[in-house]
Amino acid sequence: MMESNRVYLDNAATTWPKPESVYRAVDQYQRELGCSPGRGVYRHATRADQVVAQARDRVAQLLEAEDSRQFIFAFNGSDALNLAIRGSLRPGDHAVTTAADHNSVLRPLRFLEETQGVAVDRVPCDAAGRVDAAAFAQAVQAKTRLVAINHASNVTGTLQDVPRLIEIVRRQAPDALVLVDAAQSLGHLPLSVRQWDVDLLAAPGHKGLLGPMGTGLLYIRPGVEDRLAPLRLGGTGSQSNEDRQPAMLPDKYEPGNHNAVGLAGLAAGVAWVEERTPAALRRHELALLTALLEGLGGIPGLTLYGPHDPAQRVGVISFRMEPFEPHELATLLDLRFGIQVRSGIHCAPRMHAAIGTLEKGGTVRISTGPFTTPAEVEHVVESLRQLSRERGGIAVPV
Amino acid sequence: MMESNRVYLDNAATTWPKPESVYRAVDQYQRELGCSPGRGVYRHATRADQVVAQARDRVAQLLEAEDSRQFIFAFNGSDALNLAIRGSLRPGDHAVTTAADHNSVLRPLRFLEETQGVAVDRVPCDAAGRVDAAAFAQAVQAKTRLVAINHASNVTGTLQDVPRLIEIVRRQAPDALVLVDAAQSLGHLPLSVRQWDVDLLAAPGHKGLLGPMGTGLLYIRPGVEDRLAPLRLGGTGSQSNEDRQPAMLPDKYEPGNHNAVGLAGLAAGVAWVEERTPAALRRHELALLTALLEGLGGIPGLTLYGPHDPAQRVGVISFRMEPFEPHELATLLDLRFGIQVRSGIHCAPRMHAAIGTLEKGGTVRISTGPFTTPAEVEHVVESLRQLSRERGGIAVPV
Repeated sequence: MMESNRVYLDNAATTWPKPESVYRAVDQYQRELGCSPGRGVYRHATRADQVVAQARDRVAQLLEAEDSRQFIFAFNGSDALNLAIRGSLRPGDHAVTTAADHNSVLRPLRFLEETQGVAVDRVPCDAAGRVDAAAFAQAVQAKTRLVAINHASNVTGTLQDVPRLIEIVRRQAPDALVLVDAAQSLGHLPLSVRQWDVDLLAAPGHKGLLGPMGTGLLYIRPGVEDRLAPLRLGGTGSQSNEDRQPAMLPDKYEPGNHNAVGLAGLAAGVAWVEERTPAALRRHELALLTALLEGLGGIPGLTLYGPHDPAQRVGVISFRMEPFEPHELATLLDLRFGIQVRSGIHCAPRMHAAIGTLEKGGTVRISTGPFTTPAEVEHVVESLRQLSRERGGIAVPV
Repeated sequence: MMESNRVYLDNAATTWPKPESVYRAVDQYQRELGCSPGRGVYRHATRADQVVAQARDRVAQLLEAEDSRQFIFAFNGSDALNLAIRGSLRPGDHAVTTAADHNSVLRPLRFLEETQGVAVDRVPCDAAGRVDAAAFAQAVQAKTRLVAINHASNVTGTLQDVPRLIEIVRRQAPDALVLVDAAQSLGHLPLSVRQWDVDLLAAPGHKGLLGPMGTGLLYIRPGVEDRLAPLRLGGTGSQSNEDRQPAMLPDKYEPGNHNAVGLAGLAAGVAWVEERTPAALRRHELALLTALLEGLGGIPGLTLYGPHDPAQRVGVISFRMEPFEPHELATLLDLRFGIQVRSGIHCAPRMHAAIGTLEKGGTVRISTGPFTTPAEVEHVVESLRQLSRERGGIAVPV
């Protein structure tokens, strides 16, 4: 067992640990600055403004955006997705999403379908979690207003061919906005708003970007703000003589007090990602993924889901190992081996249906992070092999 | 000047400093737990669940609610208010608010008025910021669906007679929900959801409750959830086999990852408030307020706004001192005396109109907190007296 007795492999929920610089930035903000940004003229308020501006600039730089004001800070990834979805769709509109998408996309769309007469098409995936491009092309219509695409699945790690899907949208639906959910990919691999013809891109700040919880972001392509109503309205510290929300960015979408403490940490997290470079983090992730897929693939009774090719996925691996139930297996892994993984239905019911695990309690999910080591991966493989041997009664050479 | 060279009097924006226990809880959560609550079966995930449950229980206990599930955690006060307002009003509904209310109430209502045909009445205040009860009674109608009342003004500190206003609503508008914005009062004085006949009560977690930024809360009276649509939808870690939002509390309104780091700090903040007791914190606030009102009242050229009687207000004081512009005065107070206050229009334009400062650049605002000392108050009075003397050229005995 690892010395620390904690092998954290639930990084798809939130990354842990964070870089030391993130802890320090949070503590320092709380103790030394403490005040609210965007509203005061005193010295510390000005420094608080700079902290938020720096977080915004770092995110914009990481994603190669020209104007950092096109990045809106949100509560979490779901908050950013809700702004994109609920802010862009009107009663009677048509939207398209995919079976790979998370409930943070599926549930707002279901809600709009049931309460506002929004028509929603949900494009199926194959058994490896890949969106069916032909069905996608069928679903996207001239009248479509919003297309929400998951970049990397939080269940199977499957990476979608986003440029190809966007191409279909642009060809067939001139008025559609394209929203990409990059919750499981941003910070994990090189990503740029220049590489894709994307209108909206949402992500939490506390996953691949290594910021604290209580942070999220939405990229809004210049001009798209004219089609996006705010989800939250209120005090912005700007145009305060008016009880109308300002139209300027980012204020239009950022009422109330920022989680400035969290943004101080987010700036530090993004700085760490930039320093290591997303390309190097991706290489690290691919090495772990390859070892995991190979190691787990040889264990009797263990079924892996998602693409076989590590290059087609991020560091999120779902599996089942008969005769264990997912929750039982996750509990055993933690109590006996210190391995912390997620189990069950991972808030993406249609992906579980696609891979055939919706009706049988879901999967066990391992998700790696930048601090995951090859030794930890080996420990996971050995532990599962041991459990398989014990419960299955099958002799496995070790 | 204070030894620390920082006299922070912007507590109405966010309290600073926080108790040491808040800083430690935040740092400890990040370093030792780190994981997301509500979604895992492993040991640390269970401890994370307990942190959130404890924060909820503490808030419920402070406010004397029977069931802690009736408290929803939000991003900030504005987020909680938006959920209450946008979640309860439908196209064509009638709503009432007051001139004392903050833009986090006024702007969502203006938005619904302009985009959804919601009719909004805004009840005026007198020159001390008190809601005109007769006009209020005129505005509240049988068809009214929501009445949003500010408890304590963030401009003048004015405390409204909430029970009396609620009584009018109950008599005249049987279907109306009553929403109280307790942003400037919760944690500052004894407050209980049993003392008022209130349906919804919103507050940030980072002001009087002394939690970190990125926290807010909404109390929902039992049964009111049936009339309140969620503002945000997504993964809840519950009923994950469904792409419909669960109806149960608190999940219905809490999609996505919690700011669990912030909630760990909030639990510590509320514990501190409970230990000191809101009644004792109120006595401290009243002593500071009395000294400030007396001291400032004697300075030539200085005009105080809000009620004369400290018992009718919280520790928020707006003033102007001729011939200074508010921003100029705030800058001078900081640079020369280390006194950090807010200046301008404090996100409540109708209150500024009521007290006559909307068209002339607003006010300077001093807001005290539980760590404000009598010596700091004295320093503020002395500093303003000195500035008045210098600029006004008027000899003032000291």
